[in-house]
Amino acid sequence: MALLKRHIRHHSLEEAEKRNDIGFGTLVTDVPTRLINRDGSFNVKRLSETFWGKLNLYNRLITISWQKFFLLVISYFFITNLIFALAYELIGIEYLHGIELTNEWTKFYDAYFFSAQTLTTVGYGRIAPHGFIASTVASIESLLGLLTFALATGLLYARFSRPEARILYSKNALIAPYLDITGLMFRIVNERQNQLIDVTVELVFTILEQTPEGKKVRKYYGLPLERNKVQFFPMNWTIVHPIIEESPVFGMTREDMLKGEAELFVLIKATEDTFNQSVHSRMSYHAKEMVWGAKYESMIWEKNGMITMDLSKLSDIREVPLTSEYIPDDKYEESEKQAD
Amino acid sequence: MALLKRHIRHHSLEEAEKRNDIGFGTLVTDVPTRLINRDGSFNVKRLSETFWGKLNLYNRLITISWQKFFLLVISYFFITNLIFALAYELIGIEYLHGIELTNEWTKFYDAYFFSAQTLTTVGYGRIAPHGFIASTVASIESLLGLLTFALATGLLYARFSRPEARILYSKNALIAPYLDITGLMFRIVNERQNQLIDVTVELVFTILEQTPEGKKVRKYYGLPLERNKVQFFPMNWTIVHPIIEESPVFGMTREDMLKGEAELFVLIKATEDTFNQSVHSRMSYHAKEMVWGAKYESMIWEKNGMITMDLSKLSDIREVPLTSEYIPDDKYEESEKQAD
Amino acid sequence: MALLKRHIRHHSLEEAEKRNDIGFGTLVTDVPTRLINRDGSFNVKRLSETFWGKLNLYNRLITISWQKFFLLVISYFFITNLIFALAYELIGIEYLHGIELTNEWTKFYDAYFFSAQTLTTVGYGRIAPHGFIASTVASIESLLGLLTFALATGLLYARFSRPEARILYSKNALIAPYLDITGLMFRIVNERQNQLIDVTVELVFTILEQTPEGKKVRKYYGLPLERNKVQFFPMNWTIVHPIIEESPVFGMTREDMLKGEAELFVLIKATEDTFNQSVHSRMSYHAKEMVWGAKYESMIWEKNGMITMDLSKLSDIREVPLTSEYIPDDKYEESEKQAD
Amino acid sequence: MALLKRHIRHHSLEEAEKRNDIGFGTLVTDVPTRLINRDGSFNVKRLSETFWGKLNLYNRLITISWQKFFLLVISYFFITNLIFALAYELIGIEYLHGIELTNEWTKFYDAYFFSAQTLTTVGYGRIAPHGFIASTVASIESLLGLLTFALATGLLYARFSRPEARILYSKNALIAPYLDITGLMFRIVNERQNQLIDVTVELVFTILEQTPEGKKVRKYYGLPLERNKVQFFPMNWTIVHPIIEESPVFGMTREDMLKGEAELFVLIKATEDTFNQSVHSRMSYHAKEMVWGAKYESMIWEKNGMITMDLSKLSDIREVPLTSEYIPDDKYEESEKQAD
Repeated sequence: MALLKRHIRHHSLEEAEKRNDIGFGTLVTDVPTRLINRDGSFNVKRLSETFWGKLNLYNRLITISWQKFFLLVISYFFITNLIFALAYELIGIEYLHGIELTNEWTKFYDAYFFSAQTLTTVGYGRIAPHGFIASTVASIESLLGLLTFALATGLLYARFSRPEARILYSKNALIAPYLDITGLMFRIVNERQNQLIDVTVELVFTILEQTPEGKKVRKYYGLPLERNKVQFFPMNWTIVHPIIEESPVFGMTREDMLKGEAELFVLIKATEDTFNQSVHSRMSYHAKEMVWGAKYESMIWEKNGMITMDLSKLSDIREVPLTSEYIPDDKYEESEKQAD
Repeated sequence: MALLKRHIRHHSLEEAEKRNDIGFGTLVTDVPTRLINRDGSFNVKRLSETFWGKLNLYNRLITISWQKFFLLVISYFFITNLIFALAYELIGIEYLHGIELTNEWTKFYDAYFFSAQTLTTVGYGRIAPHGFIASTVASIESLLGLLTFALATGLLYARFSRPEARILYSKNALIAPYLDITGLMFRIVNERQNQLIDVTVELVFTILEQTPEGKKVRKYYGLPLERNKVQFFPMNWTIVHPIIEESPVFGMTREDMLKGEAELFVLIKATEDTFNQSVHSRMSYHAKEMVWGAKYESMIWEKNGMITMDLSKLSDIREVPLTSEYIPDDKYEESEKQAD
Repeated sequence: MALLKRHIRHHSLEEAEKRNDIGFGTLVTDVPTRLINRDGSFNVKRLSETFWGKLNLYNRLITISWQKFFLLVISYFFITNLIFALAYELIGIEYLHGIELTNEWTKFYDAYFFSAQTLTTVGYGRIAPHGFIASTVASIESLLGLLTFALATGLLYARFSRPEARILYSKNALIAPYLDITGLMFRIVNERQNQLIDVTVELVFTILEQTPEGKKVRKYYGLPLERNKVQFFPMNWTIVHPIIEESPVFGMTREDMLKGEAELFVLIKATEDTFNQSVHSRMSYHAKEMVWGAKYESMIWEKNGMITMDLSKLSDIREVPLTSEYIPDDKYEESEKQAD
Repeated sequence: MALLKRHIRHHSLEEAEKRNDIGFGTLVTDVPTRLINRDGSFNVKRLSETFWGKLNLYNRLITISWQKFFLLVISYFFITNLIFALAYELIGIEYLHGIELTNEWTKFYDAYFFSAQTLTTVGYGRIAPHGFIASTVASIESLLGLLTFALATGLLYARFSRPEARILYSKNALIAPYLDITGLMFRIVNERQNQLIDVTVELVFTILEQTPEGKKVRKYYGLPLERNKVQFFPMNWTIVHPIIEESPVFGMTREDMLKGEAELFVLIKATEDTFNQSVHSRMSYHAKEMVWGAKYESMIWEKNGMITMDLSKLSDIREVPLTSEYIPDDKYEESEKQAD
């Protein structure tokens, strides 16, 4: 009896251990929404974060676009100068010797430019602070200038040297003929000219499944690949999951996938050549982004004994009929049984 | 006979090899104190360190809080300027042309501000050094300014880019029902918005045990987990050690743990997403921080088809009765025997 | 019948899985050209890249030679100053107080030097901007100066700290006697004085082969090595592929290799000692660069109890007869059969 | 016959593969000198290096002591200013307006300080360049100043952030009683307060051995350890190679080791806690630095419930008799046979 109990216990333990380790708990299994966005970010909203956690300053300064970054730098420069100009006005413009006293406007903009000359430490000296308070403010401003600049140096370096796999993914994943069977495939290419080496790919397929009790439960399946690693990646690479009978995708139609909110997670890891840093890239194809019965057009050809690759052809596809083997109507149940 | 000796020898050798590799020697096994603090630091005092080893300058400048760091920067700026101002006074204020000679106070603060203008290399030039000695000191100060600033740039970058897993741990570890048995568990969440990938957890349980001779010896046990790795960590994660009969925790009461100064070491390793750096986090739950018969409240729910997580609920627990299986009163000795 | 089909299917799947993972698809197998250049770059031309992808700014600034880098910095400095000088001319030279008004030439070069003093933030102040527009341009220039300089700091650091294995390869790969058989070998040495540790080598041999149908197909073979890893690399290292019967090179003549456009890819990985970074190096010997029947001269000797190594002897070879075992004329077919 | 030949061939191949991978070739096996110095550097002299390879600028600037580094910075500052001062003298001191024209000496040092103000970009402007040539030289100097400073920033950061395991080694390695046998041991401690985690140790023992033909050949043996990895390293660690019969050290006397120029290489790898960088440390104990029959004094004790460690006791030893088991006089040959 005790032995039996232990058996049951260990069995449910093993079951728990088998649950896929993608990092989404069982709780969210019935959320009828996309879990991972196309850019690889997760569809999770966080509440009760601390102020700094929410601001997430460093990460944002590193990951925003270059346009936004420079806009921010210029805004910071402009606003800081404005604040200090107002401070000098408040202290009394007469403490800035050399300032043009023609009218209020020239006074203000000369205070502003004095501030700019202090913040950048260019300090021409045509205008220079006199007296304790103005000099104190000016010394604080120059220190602030130096620290800001130190920060900007670090940020620029961090932005440039950040390890990033800029991989271009084909717009659609395809269910296409592959050898004499069918495959689930998508195509990638390195956007950059630097080399990626030891590129490995992992695929996880997730779909809402009906339990015998009628409950919908999200299941996760790792998909084995024809090849999950290449040593070099100088050209395009079509990543293929062969849909054999054991595949969880075997026999699925476009409607099945749409109904089950199916998603195909892609996780790519590689080593970037220039700095020998490990990089990665995440993507997700939703069922809506999968195409049945199409093949990628070739994007490589030979020209004057030179291998030539056209990146604009990455998502080019053409229709092809799917092999009848893929969904053997009369043998569906049979193959199902064998797959168990 | 020689063979026998060799046997004994090799047996004690194997015993030595089995000792747990946590890095605390056998010597400290009877210290009735916490070995690792809640923040992951070790409870070890070091004597006879060298001056620089003790000062540990770089590590401290990197790991102190931002408040302390900026206080230090400002103090450095203030004190350095003070020292150089005194130096210029000593050399003779008349060698700083342009200085306000109204009285001793204006002389001093103008020397001070000249120093500040030199240290930051803003150099307005309203006040400028004349003569060999004043010019020499000023040139040394400007070099010092540049070097300090170079250092500050590096420190700021190092502070920002330092790989750190900011993991929030639940206040308490729980002994709670888990499937149809009992589990030792705690809950974690990523404090930051950046993603952690390939998160792995290791647990070591340590307790003072009574040897047959009545000596207290500290023992270390690695605790197997329901799951010790997740690929992504977008939500909370409850880490569970299932308390099966083989577990060293099996049958232990709160009193046993307190008496034995039990501790649960947690070591988490992961890869941070933005810079693809490996990070880690260390923690320790003391017996006093473990709760018997409680479960974590859920901190995730669905709202408008969006997964929502409230970080403030991380340590929220509610009481639950422990399953009778955990300490089978009449079968305690029996299971003990089987566990050997 | 269904079973048979599945058999065929799985067989062709296994075939596909066996294809070598060098990263060149089957498409380019008949390109009669060198695939990897001697410097390790790939012979692939990319079309339809985006502007930034093509420019590849950061990578280029990091990897160009120091001469080019400094030329670029100086050109940038010169051209930027020129542009701003013209801007000040446009605004009106009278807004730069202190400028020498002798003639147009002195006016221009003083505007130019004012620009230089602003860009480097040296700001003597002999010449200083007056009025709103000139001051605005000057403040923009000083901000630009700071940002450029921040960038230069990062670039200089990146260039210096870039992990790079500077490995010198012998000019030729040799087919030489090795022990009592024959080996395919080449010799390497660390160009730098820093230590490389845990050095591992991988060799891939590729050649165009005639299929029974007369089609030429490029095949890839990993070559096993006498030793593919050393813990330290303080001296030279001759890397040897022993040409046993199982080797794809067994029995090949210089003519065979030239006809098949044979190439020997070398991929070396190591850990650099000073910064503990992992580094790698790629190389390729074309059939034209292989020598039959030669041995490397020793480049190490003892002198006054000191191990001495002459780097200039790295590629020094002397002729030696090849062992008759290498191509056993009358036993060729026999060994071929055994190799299968 | 062919089969036999192949057998011989493959046998010698296997022999070659068994050679230890420490990275010293067979050529240097009879050099009667220390191969690795106590600081972990190799005893190899390199000839015919290129100028830059010999200079090895970056590595040296990173690894020289802080005293030398700052001396170099100050020398650079002094000498560069001197050169530019001479240049301004050459151009004509009258082109530096504001210079003190009292005598040749004041002229020179004002030129010198003008140079310093330009190089550091402090640019007071009391002295300012006039005319094309002087202005050109000054603008070049300020650019040089910026670039030098950018470099200094990078170097300071690199020096600080360089991953380094500062491990203190006991002065001597000991042959001491260990459990009921004998062990070859040494003791290490972390010099710094930062934590090292996942510390692994590798030992290689090398000695000149007499071949049956009377030739001396250097042999390398990896020594298995009682424990070769600890997860944390908060205290001292005594690394022990148990000298069982299978050990190459078994039965060796101090005289044997001295005659054979025995060396014990130590390679330690770890992960540094603050930056999560992997670090390593190399050491070598020469036979002269090994002590027979001694034990380390404890360097850890408890005080007020606190674990206390005295770093100055690291190398403290006391004499102990060696167990008779170590060299069983009458059973030496017997154990030798068994060890084969």
